[in-house]
Amino acid sequence: MIGRKLSELAAQIALAGLALCAFSASAQAEDGYDLWLRYQPLSGASQSLCDPAVDLSGPVAQGVQLQAQRSATVDIAVAELHRGLASLFRCESQKPTILLARTDQLSGKEAQFSEGLRGQMAGSYRLATMADGRILIAANDDIGLLYGSFGLLRHLQTDSANQKLDQLAIPALPLRLLNHWDNPDRGVERGYSGESIFDWWHLPDHLDPRMIDYARANASIGINGTVVNNVNASPIMLTPRYIAKLQRLADAFRPYGIRVYLSVRFSSPRELGGLDSADPLDPKVAAWWKSKADEIYAAIPDFGGFLVKANSEGQPGPQDYGRTHADGANMLATAIGDRGTVIWRAFVYQSSAETDRVKLAYEEFKPLDGKFADNVILQVKNGPLDFQPREPFHPLFGAMPHTRMMLEVQQTKEYLGFATHLAYLGTMWTEVLDANTGHGKNGHLTVADTIVSGGMAGVSNIGSDRNWSGSHFDQANWYAFGRLAWDTSLSADAIAREWAAQTFSRNPQFLNVTVKMMHDSRQAVVDYMTPLGLAHQMATGHHYGPGPWVNDLERPEWNPAYYNRADKSGIGFDRTKNGSDALGQYAPSVASGWSDPHTMDEDYLLWFQHLPWNFRTQSGRTVWEELVARYDRGVAKTHEMQREWAALAPYVDAQRYQDVADDLKVQAREAQWWRDASVSYFASRCECDLPAGATAPPHDLQWYEALNFPDAPGHK
Amino acid sequence: MIGRKLSELAAQIALAGLALCAFSASAQAEDGYDLWLRYQPLSGASQSLCDPAVDLSGPVAQGVQLQAQRSATVDIAVAELHRGLASLFRCESQKPTILLARTDQLSGKEAQFSEGLRGQMAGSYRLATMADGRILIAANDDIGLLYGSFGLLRHLQTDSANQKLDQLAIPALPLRLLNHWDNPDRGVERGYSGESIFDWWHLPDHLDPRMIDYARANASIGINGTVVNNVNASPIMLTPRYIAKLQRLADAFRPYGIRVYLSVRFSSPRELGGLDSADPLDPKVAAWWKSKADEIYAAIPDFGGFLVKANSEGQPGPQDYGRTHADGANMLATAIGDRGTVIWRAFVYQSSAETDRVKLAYEEFKPLDGKFADNVILQVKNGPLDFQPREPFHPLFGAMPHTRMMLEVQQTKEYLGFATHLAYLGTMWTEVLDANTGHGKNGHLTVADTIVSGGMAGVSNIGSDRNWSGSHFDQANWYAFGRLAWDTSLSADAIAREWAAQTFSRNPQFLNVTVKMMHDSRQAVVDYMTPLGLAHQMATGHHYGPGPWVNDLERPEWNPAYYNRADKSGIGFDRTKNGSDALGQYAPSVASGWSDPHTMDEDYLLWFQHLPWNFRTQSGRTVWEELVARYDRGVAKTHEMQREWAALAPYVDAQRYQDVADDLKVQAREAQWWRDASVSYFASRCECDLPAGATAPPHDLQWYEALNFPDAPGHK
Repeated sequence: MIGRKLSELAAQIALAGLALCAFSASAQAEDGYDLWLRYQPLSGASQSLCDPAVDLSGPVAQGVQLQAQRSATVDIAVAELHRGLASLFRCESQKPTILLARTDQLSGKEAQFSEGLRGQMAGSYRLATMADGRILIAANDDIGLLYGSFGLLRHLQTDSANQKLDQLAIPALPLRLLNHWDNPDRGVERGYSGESIFDWWHLPDHLDPRMIDYARANASIGINGTVVNNVNASPIMLTPRYIAKLQRLADAFRPYGIRVYLSVRFSSPRELGGLDSADPLDPKVAAWWKSKADEIYAAIPDFGGFLVKANSEGQPGPQDYGRTHADGANMLATAIGDRGTVIWRAFVYQSSAETDRVKLAYEEFKPLDGKFADNVILQVKNGPLDFQPREPFHPLFGAMPHTRMMLEVQQTKEYLGFATHLAYLGTMWTEVLDANTGHGKNGHLTVADTIVSGGMAGVSNIGSDRNWSGSHFDQANWYAFGRLAWDTSLSADAIAREWAAQTFSRNPQFLNVTVKMMHDSRQAVVDYMTPLGLAHQMATGHHYGPGPWVNDLERPEWNPAYYNRADKSGIGFDRTKNGSDALGQYAPSVASGWSDPHTMDEDYLLWFQHLPWNFRTQSGRTVWEELVARYDRGVAKTHEMQREWAALAPYVDAQRYQDVADDLKVQAREAQWWRDASVSYFASRCECDLPAGATAPPHDLQWYEALNFPDAPGHK
Repeated sequence: MIGRKLSELAAQIALAGLALCAFSASAQAEDGYDLWLRYQPLSGASQSLCDPAVDLSGPVAQGVQLQAQRSATVDIAVAELHRGLASLFRCESQKPTILLARTDQLSGKEAQFSEGLRGQMAGSYRLATMADGRILIAANDDIGLLYGSFGLLRHLQTDSANQKLDQLAIPALPLRLLNHWDNPDRGVERGYSGESIFDWWHLPDHLDPRMIDYARANASIGINGTVVNNVNASPIMLTPRYIAKLQRLADAFRPYGIRVYLSVRFSSPRELGGLDSADPLDPKVAAWWKSKADEIYAAIPDFGGFLVKANSEGQPGPQDYGRTHADGANMLATAIGDRGTVIWRAFVYQSSAETDRVKLAYEEFKPLDGKFADNVILQVKNGPLDFQPREPFHPLFGAMPHTRMMLEVQQTKEYLGFATHLAYLGTMWTEVLDANTGHGKNGHLTVADTIVSGGMAGVSNIGSDRNWSGSHFDQANWYAFGRLAWDTSLSADAIAREWAAQTFSRNPQFLNVTVKMMHDSRQAVVDYMTPLGLAHQMATGHHYGPGPWVNDLERPEWNPAYYNRADKSGIGFDRTKNGSDALGQYAPSVASGWSDPHTMDEDYLLWFQHLPWNFRTQSGRTVWEELVARYDRGVAKTHEMQREWAALAPYVDAQRYQDVADDLKVQAREAQWWRDASVSYFASRCECDLPAGATAPPHDLQWYEALNFPDAPGHK
């Protein structure tokens, strides 16, 4: 009896001990907070390889030597190096010795390392292994030292640390900005990551310590500015109370090389100033803006400037007074002067059933080329519609050679499945950066070429969620944005590999599978949501789920039906000369590539062509068959992703593994829904049977049309 | 040259090393996430005292022995003990050996420990040091073992671990519930801690791991149920989609002893069921609710029940059909049957300038005493108005002896400074629990006595903020609520001391100062916001800041002026027989204590009396002088709190020290604002000069009246 009780007890205790192990593991659960800055120990840096003879207390063993005046930025760089090295290397004896040096502090043999940096853009840096084995981080300015420190830590994790290093890093673009669509009430328009990351209510008295990690993360990928509020701007952001809050943020971000910007409402002189007008040519209005700019610059000497959405989707603007966008932008540019920049958005379209919405921004802005002041930048979305899973590049790129241009992309996945669907957008953005506009000398000028005097802006996916971006893989889009803004020539796969290695695991098997999964993911979304060049097929308002049938909205060019134009005759939008001739807005060499439906890149087929359902595509399938095949291909890809991820479980911590697995399950279900609803609708328009072998949707069209989600996030 | 360079270098490296130390400390910064469950090592448990001879691998050294069937709850209890012990005790040799045993598994000498537990309420437990030195945790059920585990861990941190332990813990109340005022869009009404803690959008596919820490924290203080949604209920919560989400939460909470409840909208049969009516006496309506309850119980067999706000502030209810509250409650009670409970809120008031709002709930509910079904509980706020900094206890307590009653208090500080002002509410709640209603045999029946067959509900302060409650000290109100619901006889100071020791530091100096600061803090808020028995003086809508002048709202009993009744003749609300006779709703022995302005407790003076400005109070000062003196006393207390906290810096980690210091600064500023605006207004009504020695407000009354904060949180 006693013996059995003791052995039962022992068994129970052993089991309790097992429970302990499980809970110990969870006590160290990764929740995504550390982003790509986890600095997980490098393999081989195990205790047994440590050299006990190495003196842990001496200065050289600390790893970092300084040849620069101390400053807040330099201190941050040193601290980041210490933090990273201490985490990456378990042994003092394995840590590299690093020399952090301003180029004006390099002399003798070291001076050679200044060469490539002379006259380069702020933030440039050089990494080099010196003859004595020390690693040099050199830069002309402190922010370059900080960027170089992050660059070195990235290098140590992603490339072999044993190779001789010689890397010159020059930013491609001057402005590399986040655009937060955050409101003062902490709601985030098209945000799927919680509330605004900015705790406005408690500023300026209290700075959320998370703001420091925000600044670190952005500095680590070279982001040098942030527009903190929604382009549908609240005037309250310009009140003294909010300028004081912004000042507290600016002071915190400054040593990380991040300037703050504000989105402004063009009618603020009326709402805040009590003026009767916001006419940019009215001297009282101009004086109000000048005074407001002076007020801001007195608090924030390096304030970046204003971002403006005007005469677009109901926002006020200069056209309300018969003035042009240039009139409006230039008035603000004068108010700001040489202290900062006015970034004017080209996202405009008038309400009309007769015109082609995607032509309107070009029509409105092309005539204004050369009319903008030097400190004005025109910010243009990657495509002429609105951040769809695929769009051709915006025709304004290359068409305004006398205007500074900026590329606006969307990190938050408003149209690509919110923060649930895994969709790496690095491939989308390299697609547009590498696109040849056909302008310029020799008819070769990429979109990347056209923005070198402006920059890149990314509509942020950052929110108050612990994992910042709403999902772990959505962090990759924040990361990729920064890396591409820094170096527009990087490949999407290389960036994905960097990110995955730092965020999850350096295991080669893990990386190979993950990078491929990320590479294919955007196209999967295109396939199951808007294949074959379709666009703008989502449900109303919140944009959650499919709505290809919607045809009753207040503005015709908001209707999915306006875009798919599906009827008995066919599907697609004729944008050739025979239709709206949106093609005519492109350089002829480019337009000709999209003119012939038999030979063009079919990823853009129904964007530019209206075709009969039985038109024979390049696969040999009809348009209808190809459409359904692509929907099914997209759905199949989501199942493949689930299988791939399941096989990666051994390489990933339990919690994040489960987080991603949970979302992949939802993605597969929603992909199927998109496919079923869309196929159901198009079959009804075509009055076609399903192609042979295609599975019938489980519900009828009315069932899909009746679905309703008043609680979908992001639409506040 | 070289020598100087080397020494400069050395200096720079040394400084860089210092930076390292600072950043290492911040790398372990406390952010409040761990609440009172930090389990900081006990002093004296240092490495040097560890006994190397003790075998770390044997089962006894693990610390926990089990005499109970394993279950999810038992596993959680064991894991929590391991987690706590491993953190509290650095040495295996110092860990106590613990026996976790169900009473039906105790035999022989051990059986004596079952004695006090026989027939006690679920969750009861006993802690006892046994003859052989082991510590016994005994309970009749698994949840008692879990509560006992938390109880032991609490004991180890707050009392001397060396004393012989013998503690019997029996819950005072059956229902100990959180009430979340959370909406499906993640907004929280009167929430100052971020968004809703419930990630509805991603449920049921994904369970936020934070839900486990939510469950742990609640179980640690004996909370056994949670109403997950706002009493201004959205019908969507009863849809199948949301029942599935709730099921995922219920499954996660169940092993922690926490049942889920829903707030329901009384008109749901119309919005969801398409019925024409929500008349509780309509059989179709009753059938709809029965079917809905069955649907919920099929998914969640231990669903707690419904919480209902009906015919209050525009919410639908039985009175819309000429039925009584009892008709409505009993219909729902039948639908639920013996599976759960209907909790019906007594917070009602009609719109009228002639009646006294604080009388209305009593008038409406007292006649219904004894008419409610056995599984109905009436939930009554602590006072008859609405969670003011001070109110007399609600006259319904003790006046409905044939009805199960529940006390509703507010943890979130809607009227006490949001999550910015430090105000410990343990003192407020013991004040009401200990109040003698004057009913019952011998005229002695406390509020605590009247709720023993119902329970306590706390409007939660929990949100998505990393620190859960919006501020570190606001966690204490969550903690105190749980402890008081478990044991209504605990003292507020004892609870504060427990909380502070676990959350911050066990240092006696720290505790003495902090407990006193917490003790005094609620009265400070009373003094600087609504002294001398005033109530309901806040600004409109968001309730941020003072608004004693407001007199133009849609409903008269929403106006601060309705409550202060300040004019040339005097100030205060006559609730005696000469006025509204709200006093008459109390037992005569209680009413008589508040009838005479010369002798009554002046904390309630202007609640019950309208007095001339020159009425001589018990201090010798006039009402006007006493009023201003109390405002000033409150403001002075906020400065004292800042000084006290500053002196506690050595005992607190840097980040949380700063967080609290930042908020205390804001509190002092806002306390001054309340005082200045209120004094300014009342001086204008009185047409009085300020009392001698009182500082004039820096602005005129119009300046205070013009202040406007459209961005104040919590009012969605």
